[in-house]
Amino acid sequence: MSHARLICGRCGAYYPVGMATLACADCNVPLDVDYTAGQGDGGTRAQWAGYSIPLPLHGGRSGNSLGEGDTPVVELPAVGGRLGLKRLHGKLEFMSPTGSFKDRGVAVMMAVALELGVAEVVEDSSGNAGASVSAYAARAGIKAHVFAPATAPEAKVGQIRVYGAEVHSVEGSRDDTTDAAVAFYKTHGLVYASHAWSPYFLEGTKTFAYEVAAYFKGRAPDHIVFPVGNGGLYLGAWKGFRELRQAGHISVVPRLHAVQTRGVMPLVAAFNGEDWSKTEVRKTVAGGIAVAAPARKWQVLDALRDTAGVAVAVDDPEIVQMQRLLAEGEGVFAEPTSAAAFAGLERLVADGVIGGDDLTLVAITGFGLKDEMPD
Amino acid sequence: MSHARLICGRCGAYYPVGMATLACADCNVPLDVDYTAGQGDGGTRAQWAGYSIPLPLHGGRSGNSLGEGDTPVVELPAVGGRLGLKRLHGKLEFMSPTGSFKDRGVAVMMAVALELGVAEVVEDSSGNAGASVSAYAARAGIKAHVFAPATAPEAKVGQIRVYGAEVHSVEGSRDDTTDAAVAFYKTHGLVYASHAWSPYFLEGTKTFAYEVAAYFKGRAPDHIVFPVGNGGLYLGAWKGFRELRQAGHISVVPRLHAVQTRGVMPLVAAFNGEDWSKTEVRKTVAGGIAVAAPARKWQVLDALRDTAGVAVAVDDPEIVQMQRLLAEGEGVFAEPTSAAAFAGLERLVADGVIGGDDLTLVAITGFGLKDEMPD
Repeated sequence: MSHARLICGRCGAYYPVGMATLACADCNVPLDVDYTAGQGDGGTRAQWAGYSIPLPLHGGRSGNSLGEGDTPVVELPAVGGRLGLKRLHGKLEFMSPTGSFKDRGVAVMMAVALELGVAEVVEDSSGNAGASVSAYAARAGIKAHVFAPATAPEAKVGQIRVYGAEVHSVEGSRDDTTDAAVAFYKTHGLVYASHAWSPYFLEGTKTFAYEVAAYFKGRAPDHIVFPVGNGGLYLGAWKGFRELRQAGHISVVPRLHAVQTRGVMPLVAAFNGEDWSKTEVRKTVAGGIAVAAPARKWQVLDALRDTAGVAVAVDDPEIVQMQRLLAEGEGVFAEPTSAAAFAGLERLVADGVIGGDDLTLVAITGFGLKDEMPD
Repeated sequence: MSHARLICGRCGAYYPVGMATLACADCNVPLDVDYTAGQGDGGTRAQWAGYSIPLPLHGGRSGNSLGEGDTPVVELPAVGGRLGLKRLHGKLEFMSPTGSFKDRGVAVMMAVALELGVAEVVEDSSGNAGASVSAYAARAGIKAHVFAPATAPEAKVGQIRVYGAEVHSVEGSRDDTTDAAVAFYKTHGLVYASHAWSPYFLEGTKTFAYEVAAYFKGRAPDHIVFPVGNGGLYLGAWKGFRELRQAGHISVVPRLHAVQTRGVMPLVAAFNGEDWSKTEVRKTVAGGIAVAAPARKWQVLDALRDTAGVAVAVDDPEIVQMQRLLAEGEGVFAEPTSAAAFAGLERLVADGVIGGDDLTLVAITGFGLKDEMPD
């Protein structure tokens, strides 16, 4: 791939594009895609929302697309009214081929795998990412192994299975599932198509930023609030907005805020300079952001600093209340994981981070249909 | 509404726009919207996919929109390869705010209700339409009563309840549910926001045709295959394509084919001139098209004749097989109701109605997540 290479964001080392290179050999952190032809010329670029977007592909992404992305932005007057926000919008990321934002990232990750002739991939997930990898692997004619905790909700595991992936059920913690997946891909010499590690995943999720800039006609929102586990959408958006700024399409990158639950809050604790360890993990309704040791934690902290974002933690009762308000007040049925972002938004307003007149957007990342029905 | 009126497609009688007028007083059939200002000028028109679309609204539809429509078209090489079709496409109607195409129709129906100051509506549905009415009523601040058979799947009833509609569970047949809804709206003097009867519902679903024409750059497909129960999408598409032809955007209306199940096949039987009665109803996995007495049956037959369409009936095992092929071969998780259209497609190919080189599109109307997971 002549126009792209991989780069370590920590030490600046370069690596050639490939599916086998996951981490910097020296720093052991996930890599990112860097475009050697620069931002303004060369390379294969996708047309999306009127912008040219650099992508790590030669043949474009349409061949393996399932129609992901291009999600609608809607106003949220009921939630806005409750929180005293005059200009609150939601981007309905759940209107996606498998029902979550993961499709943006997986579409590009699997298109790269297809271009590089990969025949079999391994992923570990307790839900949305597994379903997405299973679907895009089916589309690409690639065999997928998805490792999932034995405790994962049956509805989510069922969706992973539907698209034909082989599901490996693992007893123990979420980390045990990751360990089993890593052992499996190493033993069998397979590719680890991990949404948490793959640099290509973020190249897909960055399209979120381009669509936001297009929707708001080049005037990016003041604030965007994300539920954050591994940071796949959060970091992709950060990259996209920086590309847009560099290309002169926007002048300021929005403040990108991150929401976690008190049950699993490694990023919030690190942001606040507090101690937090995996032993403090508590069960939460927001399973999609229950990631105790995010591989790109340092990068999320960089993004928070860079954009003057704030990380906040919320409790399950607030999440359930926001899920209900979204459904009954706006007609939007979000996963608890996505409703968590609105509970976080409420705190950001209470803390004075977000003001009543600020242009604010929340990423509604997953469909409520994917979980069990709320009571 | 100065630019629109209602018309009886049977006798040609006109009625003013309103939510209380459901049927022609003489013919007792559902009405349609007619634009007095003609197709080319006047009236409130929506911009969609580059076309001006006449709509029965003054304020536009954006106020109550949840981002419905604008669904992707994707190629289906695995199913196409199996059936010997070189140019097979699917339109992913399930990528919709509540997970089914019903949102197109309900969005316009509820926008009209909002414009006319309606405060409370009644609908009867065993699933997708009920969820959609519940969601858009929530968005509009309108109270919704949804009548559902006591036998309806809990997952579907749960989604109706999530958006805040009051669910009335009715013992007995699907017809008993409709009877209970009709008795209720008459007793309480409420509006019957019925997807099966409302003329505004079809004004929303007709946007499907505009998007198809835009996607294929003014050269409409040779064939479009729909799963058909009440015919809400089928008839909307027919209207949209006729408007497009009248406005000179396309030269030929595609052949619009209708698929039902052998368990519930009033349209197929009527199309073939065979006897069929409600007493022959059998249970089917395709619950979304299990409509024994469609209110617009005569109109579907008109559309079949007008477009040289064919109506075919399929069996449950073929449906389940196609659902699996779509998921494992294409990465598309369709409801059984939508998979039925592909089983019908297979028959249309076998019967020589659709040829290997024909440009063919199938409407994938509902998300597989809405039903119980297949085995």
